[in-house]
Amino acid sequence: MSVVQSAERVVLGIDIGGTNTKFGLVNDQGVVLDKGSIRTNIHKEVNDFIDALYAAVTPLLEKHLSGKALTGIGVGVPNGNFYTGTVEYAPNLPWKGVIPFGELISAKFGVPCKITNDANAAAQGEMLFGAAQGMKDFIMMTLGTGVGSGIVANGSLIYGHDGFAGELGHTIVKPGGRKHWSTGSEGSLESYASATGIAITAKKMRAEFPESMLNNYPEDAINSKTVFECASQGDAIAIEVFRYTGQKLGEALANFVMFSSPEAILLFGGVIRAGDFILNPAKLHMERNLLPIFRNKVKIIFSGLDESDAAILGASALILS
Amino acid sequence: MSVVQSAERVVLGIDIGGTNTKFGLVNDQGVVLDKGSIRTNIHKEVNDFIDALYAAVTPLLEKHLSGKALTGIGVGVPNGNFYTGTVEYAPNLPWKGVIPFGELISAKFGVPCKITNDANAAAQGEMLFGAAQGMKDFIMMTLGTGVGSGIVANGSLIYGHDGFAGELGHTIVKPGGRKHWSTGSEGSLESYASATGIAITAKKMRAEFPESMLNNYPEDAINSKTVFECASQGDAIAIEVFRYTGQKLGEALANFVMFSSPEAILLFGGVIRAGDFILNPAKLHMERNLLPIFRNKVKIIFSGLDESDAAILGASALILS
Repeated sequence: MSVVQSAERVVLGIDIGGTNTKFGLVNDQGVVLDKGSIRTNIHKEVNDFIDALYAAVTPLLEKHLSGKALTGIGVGVPNGNFYTGTVEYAPNLPWKGVIPFGELISAKFGVPCKITNDANAAAQGEMLFGAAQGMKDFIMMTLGTGVGSGIVANGSLIYGHDGFAGELGHTIVKPGGRKHWSTGSEGSLESYASATGIAITAKKMRAEFPESMLNNYPEDAINSKTVFECASQGDAIAIEVFRYTGQKLGEALANFVMFSSPEAILLFGGVIRAGDFILNPAKLHMERNLLPIFRNKVKIIFSGLDESDAAILGASALILS
Repeated sequence: MSVVQSAERVVLGIDIGGTNTKFGLVNDQGVVLDKGSIRTNIHKEVNDFIDALYAAVTPLLEKHLSGKALTGIGVGVPNGNFYTGTVEYAPNLPWKGVIPFGELISAKFGVPCKITNDANAAAQGEMLFGAAQGMKDFIMMTLGTGVGSGIVANGSLIYGHDGFAGELGHTIVKPGGRKHWSTGSEGSLESYASATGIAITAKKMRAEFPESMLNNYPEDAINSKTVFECASQGDAIAIEVFRYTGQKLGEALANFVMFSSPEAILLFGGVIRAGDFILNPAKLHMERNLLPIFRNKVKIIFSGLDESDAAILGASALILS
């Protein structure tokens, strides 16, 4: 049994997504000692969420810390602000307005808490323990329920003047395009390249093409997983859903490359399980929209870390680093 | 007469644009002692250009340095690479391929030479002597013959892994849109928001609207200056040319803000003489495309420095800083 030694620092790393929240106890060697998860979107009040989180984490603390206090808590959360500890107007979370998230967590657990954007946390995880080790310039794209990003330039995360830099999922890839279900903006990357966006594309396309295997599923079973099943069996419409998604992603990536000229773009999250169905068109449309000086230079890499671990390790690095 | 004192360092700052090249002698107090200019685009061979530059600079050196050597030369040039000293595949310059520009200048003048992107140089000038003093996060947009940019985050210029970061003029604002006259890309910001792009828009719109005052000019007199003259006299079509330009600029700026969340965007170059005709629609379309967390936070500022001085001072800072 892994009871923690007295000199060892242990941090709780928390990764809050629109659907699920994952957490883990991490020691100062970057080892995830134990982990768990709770649902995010069933808690309409942030205090209920924090109570549920505390209830889920307590058994782990008792098991591994045997009375010793946590060193601190690091949190990756959409629209989390590193400077202020607040979560502000997060379109994919149930809690609206400005939430003093770091303070609430800190008060509940009785230890210091630092927060950042979930994608920034993932980028930090990749830089410390993953595919971005040694890189000074890279962009991390998290393609899940939403689309997040963490941007590293000159070896540092870009937070911007207010702590909110790196909202690449909300950049517009098609002016006047698809209306976003939450922000209302038209043609944002997230409205196409998130799991939510893929489901919308799939539902539209299967309605146009009755012969598609996608029509064998009930409406609420159409998601990036079922589209992948159909694509894997050769369904041309399912393949087209991913090709279209990859095109929009690639067009966006070209613009990002011409902004910060990263060595690599790391892709992360549930959507990347579609593999080459998305990656190949993304690469094609990225390259064709780049100036020649940027072509065939930028690696697109699928994250090598276990999905939940990368974000948990990254969040914990807010305290450990 | 300003003969230079022996302890004083003097640098030649050079700003190379697609049409004109400006240069100035700058002392270590940031004072421009003297300046001049030559045409860029009449020299199809880079060595001819450097000979012409040397011939134009020599009288200034003789007048101000009285035999003392220059400390060095700093150059801002489109597609100039800070890391390698090369100019690579610059779409708006007459010299194609990879040019060892820093080496050629250094060999001709016999002093060290550092180069960077012209817009990075302008950003450095604004940070040292202009409207961006004290800012750690801002974006400089140069709207001239082409559209360039310099991005500062965490107090440093972003060069990217290869030295080419900050080519925001070539980001795509309208996929499948106007074909760029040089790069061939479709719908880039430069193809709309540069002086060249404005002339194209104006020629299209005046053909559609025979009643526009723009039709009082011969084809080759249609440029951002004449469009401004017509707009100032209330010509609705000329005003619409700038409104459309401002919309495309604003849509692009929204994406840039969601990338690096700058405190301010500095606009610089001949196009900004259109003033509110472009600024107002740019602000409107930037704000409406931003997530709420970014709204009404980002200042759009016209550069306060004299146009040529900012870039010359910025280029000289490559050596002086």
